[in-house]
Amino acid sequence: MAVAGGGVIGLTAAWMLAGDGHRVIVLDPEPGHGAAWVAAGMLAPGNEASFGEEPLARLLVAGAQRWPSFAAALEADADGSIGFEPSGTVVVACDASDRAALDQLLAFRQSIGLDARRLSASECRRAVPELSPAISGGAEVPGDHQVDNRLLVAALIAACRRRGVEFGSARVVAVDLDPIGAARGVLTNDGATVVAGTVVAAMGWQTGALGGVPGGILPDVRPVKGHILRLAGRGPVLGRTIRGIVSGRSCYLVPRRDHSLVVGATVEEMGPDRRVQAGAVHALLDDARRLVPGIDELELAECAVGLRPGSADNAPHVGWTEVPRLAVATGHFRNGILLAPITGEAIGALVNGTPIPAELQPFGVRHATEGARPATPSGR
Amino acid sequence: MAVAGGGVIGLTAAWMLAGDGHRVIVLDPEPGHGAAWVAAGMLAPGNEASFGEEPLARLLVAGAQRWPSFAAALEADADGSIGFEPSGTVVVACDASDRAALDQLLAFRQSIGLDARRLSASECRRAVPELSPAISGGAEVPGDHQVDNRLLVAALIAACRRRGVEFGSARVVAVDLDPIGAARGVLTNDGATVVAGTVVAAMGWQTGALGGVPGGILPDVRPVKGHILRLAGRGPVLGRTIRGIVSGRSCYLVPRRDHSLVVGATVEEMGPDRRVQAGAVHALLDDARRLVPGIDELELAECAVGLRPGSADNAPHVGWTEVPRLAVATGHFRNGILLAPITGEAIGALVNGTPIPAELQPFGVRHATEGARPATPSGR
Repeated sequence: MAVAGGGVIGLTAAWMLAGDGHRVIVLDPEPGHGAAWVAAGMLAPGNEASFGEEPLARLLVAGAQRWPSFAAALEADADGSIGFEPSGTVVVACDASDRAALDQLLAFRQSIGLDARRLSASECRRAVPELSPAISGGAEVPGDHQVDNRLLVAALIAACRRRGVEFGSARVVAVDLDPIGAARGVLTNDGATVVAGTVVAAMGWQTGALGGVPGGILPDVRPVKGHILRLAGRGPVLGRTIRGIVSGRSCYLVPRRDHSLVVGATVEEMGPDRRVQAGAVHALLDDARRLVPGIDELELAECAVGLRPGSADNAPHVGWTEVPRLAVATGHFRNGILLAPITGEAIGALVNGTPIPAELQPFGVRHATEGARPATPSGR
Repeated sequence: MAVAGGGVIGLTAAWMLAGDGHRVIVLDPEPGHGAAWVAAGMLAPGNEASFGEEPLARLLVAGAQRWPSFAAALEADADGSIGFEPSGTVVVACDASDRAALDQLLAFRQSIGLDARRLSASECRRAVPELSPAISGGAEVPGDHQVDNRLLVAALIAACRRRGVEFGSARVVAVDLDPIGAARGVLTNDGATVVAGTVVAAMGWQTGALGGVPGGILPDVRPVKGHILRLAGRGPVLGRTIRGIVSGRSCYLVPRRDHSLVVGATVEEMGPDRRVQAGAVHALLDDARRLVPGIDELELAECAVGLRPGSADNAPHVGWTEVPRLAVATGHFRNGILLAPITGEAIGALVNGTPIPAELQPFGVRHATEGARPATPSGR
């Protein structure tokens, strides 16, 4: 089978499919360099959904639950660390209105069964001495973890190779259909055809624009721009992962084992714009130094932009399409890394004809004009 | 003769010496990539000196006066533009205390005979529509110009080659002295000796550390770190060059013909530290967007660090040293580009045995423990 797109979703699906004994080729000019490359690697199920999105919240929680065993299996198979840190997060509110937003967040977390413990401002600073004295309060969130997103995709590529997954460096431009309208492979930008019994379209925000498929079948996804910064210290930079609420904005500060600190991430509706912009860099630095003033001394090692696949309801599209033998996995927005294991599991289930995880069932491949509908192996 | 160091000072001296018929070699692994590479290219004699530094102020004014003819001669010789823009600068004060600082600046300018005209906040915004409505006032400074610093050093290299200047890619590590203690060449990091009748040491902040010279003879210069940013627009970004006074800090916004905008520059005593730091980038963006909020949309194309040669009294060291046939030109701090023409002229005069420009005469090569003293062709 052919997986179009070697981002974190496509790579995870390919690795799992190969583990089930399938022959898999991943097609991507730059595998591993999709939206997951420009991410903080937060695995935070309770921060990324909100009231009114309970089915999505349940999916995120289910996605998070798979992470410890996924990380262990991947590290064993890739023979290397992915920097999975199940050490929780300290959520910090800057001003009084941020504390009100924190209260709402904690109430929402409680409603979906996620643990958290309020901390006073001084308790926050005891837990994280680098925090500004000006913060107004926070919470200990033991269930929000992190992974090194770049080690993750590198490990996925290595583990795929170990399982015999092939890699093709062409970009998929269209699905190749047989005379009765079923997928039989993909066409690439170098004019080649790759024959495959099943096609998994996992091209992030570009998935909806794949050629060869009749209109209205592929999901409606759009690029949602995000900036991240990488700061580099000469020694340890921060003892804990912090999620800040700063004048209503969300800001992650994620320390890595190599003494770097990832600061992210903005959310911008700018279309497919990959420019690093002055205002976004300013906003991230401004928020981060309000939380941890000491970042001023760190090296600004990288400013980067990623384009996440956003869907109309912020939930992913994972399932068979109406084109026989064409599956889709996209629309993961800010949760691509968190949901990679459960999505890979679902793709495996689709291909093997077993039920997909219950929490993904409300989210099949919706059309632009529809709401969520049950995922059925349509067209088979 | 050998010029150690191919920064803007060394290149200008080499070009002028070659114009006088001398055989010249410039030694630098990366000519053109010294402090002048990371500069805004402001030619602002009245902004960079202050009360109590009147001899330096007179030097800066004399340096600026040479620029129009220097630019014309260089562009003719290099057969290319250096982006010299004699269009003046709008100085803008942000808050009330910045307006008080502006008043002091204008009083100082008047005391050294430089023109300026006060502008109300609304006059500033008429002159530069991109300015923030929150500014408190400003001034039109017709005599402060700008040049494209990177075009400048590229043109100097081209013009040097046209005049037959040789370039060596080794780094000078020491002056080679003959048995009676006079310079007879230089030693380079690849172990070679370059024989020369005269040596001009123009290695910026590293000049004082040149080997082979008895202690106490070379001037005491130190690296003064500065950050600049380059922002890129898709069209014209700013109609005029702006110098802002923002909460007591100075910030330049210099538009270039290629729709980029140079924002600079910080002044940091950090030793020879070339890391781009988060706090400095934040400060430049913060100040620049307080002046011109629209910069938020621009691409942050480059963050760069330069190390300027700072001296104890902020004035350059230009003259013969006590080592016969060894001249020095360094310590130009923030004024290397502004003072390149008058410094090159002075080096030419030293070598030719004619008087150096009067405004440079108070600034010979001072020792670490001395104040300024007259420049004499010592040791000849």
